[in-house]
Amino acid sequence: MKRPRPSWNPTDIRGLARLISRVENRDPGTLATLAQMHDAQHGAHRLGMTGPPGAGKSTLVDQLIRRFRESGERVAVLAIDPSSPFSGGALLGDRIRMQTHAGDDGVYIRSIGSRGARGGLAQAARAITEIFDAYGYDRILIETVGVGQSEFDIMELADTTLVILVPEAGDTVQTLKAGLLEIADGFVVNKGDRPGADAMAQALAAMIALDAHGDHPIQEEHDAAHRVTRETIASPSSATGAWAIPVLTTTALTGDGIDRLYATIRAHQSWMAHHPAASEKKRAVRRAAFYTLCATLWLERVEQAVADNPALARIVDAIARGKANPYDMAQKILAQCATS
Amino acid sequence: MKRPRPSWNPTDIRGLARLISRVENRDPGTLATLAQMHDAQHGAHRLGMTGPPGAGKSTLVDQLIRRFRESGERVAVLAIDPSSPFSGGALLGDRIRMQTHAGDDGVYIRSIGSRGARGGLAQAARAITEIFDAYGYDRILIETVGVGQSEFDIMELADTTLVILVPEAGDTVQTLKAGLLEIADGFVVNKGDRPGADAMAQALAAMIALDAHGDHPIQEEHDAAHRVTRETIASPSSATGAWAIPVLTTTALTGDGIDRLYATIRAHQSWMAHHPAASEKKRAVRRAAFYTLCATLWLERVEQAVADNPALARIVDAIARGKANPYDMAQKILAQCATS
Repeated sequence: MKRPRPSWNPTDIRGLARLISRVENRDPGTLATLAQMHDAQHGAHRLGMTGPPGAGKSTLVDQLIRRFRESGERVAVLAIDPSSPFSGGALLGDRIRMQTHAGDDGVYIRSIGSRGARGGLAQAARAITEIFDAYGYDRILIETVGVGQSEFDIMELADTTLVILVPEAGDTVQTLKAGLLEIADGFVVNKGDRPGADAMAQALAAMIALDAHGDHPIQEEHDAAHRVTRETIASPSSATGAWAIPVLTTTALTGDGIDRLYATIRAHQSWMAHHPAASEKKRAVRRAAFYTLCATLWLERVEQAVADNPALARIVDAIARGKANPYDMAQKILAQCATS
Repeated sequence: MKRPRPSWNPTDIRGLARLISRVENRDPGTLATLAQMHDAQHGAHRLGMTGPPGAGKSTLVDQLIRRFRESGERVAVLAIDPSSPFSGGALLGDRIRMQTHAGDDGVYIRSIGSRGARGGLAQAARAITEIFDAYGYDRILIETVGVGQSEFDIMELADTTLVILVPEAGDTVQTLKAGLLEIADGFVVNKGDRPGADAMAQALAAMIALDAHGDHPIQEEHDAAHRVTRETIASPSSATGAWAIPVLTTTALTGDGIDRLYATIRAHQSWMAHHPAASEKKRAVRRAAFYTLCATLWLERVEQAVADNPALARIVDAIARGKANPYDMAQKILAQCATS
């Protein structure tokens, strides 16, 4: 699609920061810019890293940034901060990295607080990675702490998703089994110098092998992606060039295992670039993202209508006081709208 | 609002199960029923229980069900299963309870798998609790495993939210600090017979006291609720009858501390019923839920339009292949719609 020359300047870092803030604050005006950004992307690699609290993700990210820089890659990090689901804030690890890489203009780090409201977080995160991409960063790290559904949603943004665990994370693995296998392109057992690291790595490998032969009910829509992933796992050595989920052990504090991790990331990146299963996954994700975007736009429209229309505002107040039926009202608002 | 006699029968448990499945599967036809259900609610108490994997929530829920039954309360449990973010499934703890309370028609237990797609989970959970309420259950337990953003969203459904931790959960507490304080009406240190239980309880109490005097940036919209909560915490002994977040220790396996937990739940329930801060919180939550509902309805509308319109379907495919701009398309679809 032809477009006028973008109104933003890739070297303008302060502009970048402002733009991200506008996205974070859901400033409706940003949308036109985002549409431009979308077409200006050059295909940066998105690396998602998630795992339970205390897995040492921040240190690991720090090490990976260093490694990426050694290869001359420009790196942008989006750290999603769970310590402030409702009130903003900055990750401690974020601050650490800020210092480590201060003055290196090949590294940009931004943390956003999880916004509680209406799944807007995955939406904002997607937009921000598109902005990073358009700004010419080669690697985009998306870091979330936690292993809830929202982390899974966010990880859909990633071309490559690493699940970071520690030797003690047995409970997490047991509880999230299927979920972890659905999102992980690789497992990292960090703090690998602790007792139990090998046992955890073996448990994960066993879980992967088991899943490869297991047969879960599969949710229709939305998961062509994951279905494919499972099939490819099911035949790790097959001629289809399938991706077999690796389990790596690292000690982020000392840097042990970082080079192998880096090589694995590169390997998955090129697998993603060439394997049909990968492109099918990306299609499913892009489709889901489009619908989310539609919902978000509608929501802004409705909120605007309520802000502009006192009668509507009174009804919403009644709903808030439990005096009116939200279903009826939501449908009435929709009914006023005639889509083809 | 006057309505025709409901088309469902509160004693028809199989009908209840079918209805919940329809909600889970986003069967559009359910909406009219949900609108009726909404008005048929009699004000059941919603008790949310969340916490990291391995905190023993299922056993605790099991004990609470027993306690509620002793008081002659009818109990419905909605267990949200994180082990299957994309592929459905049932909690182990769920199965245990199924057996424990089998044959007791005063207990209904249902688990739903976390659906990855577009934050539909909180939406479905809300609808299901409304159904339980309309079916005349007195206590509705909402159980989620995990401490991610989605768990926080779901906990907004609850009148009373308990965060369940174990003596070893130090990392979780450190990472989620602010988040935990935003949602918790009470903390439970379960597995209280383990070493470190008292230390954890004291750490939580200290965190609560600190937060009461701290001053976080507060997110405009959506959190009148939490602002109020914080203020009330800030003056636990004040004349405003504020709610001071308690920290309880339990050992679910033996039943230790369950009676005190039950008493605390009752206490918060009546506080919610009378304190203005509580009603302000409920208003903020109802308002947010209404907007989510609007977004969901719009999404169904758009998906239907795409299904019915081959030209539209082709564009969505192009978006999925990365060949078309989702922002442009989403706005075009919205533009076709003229809301007041």
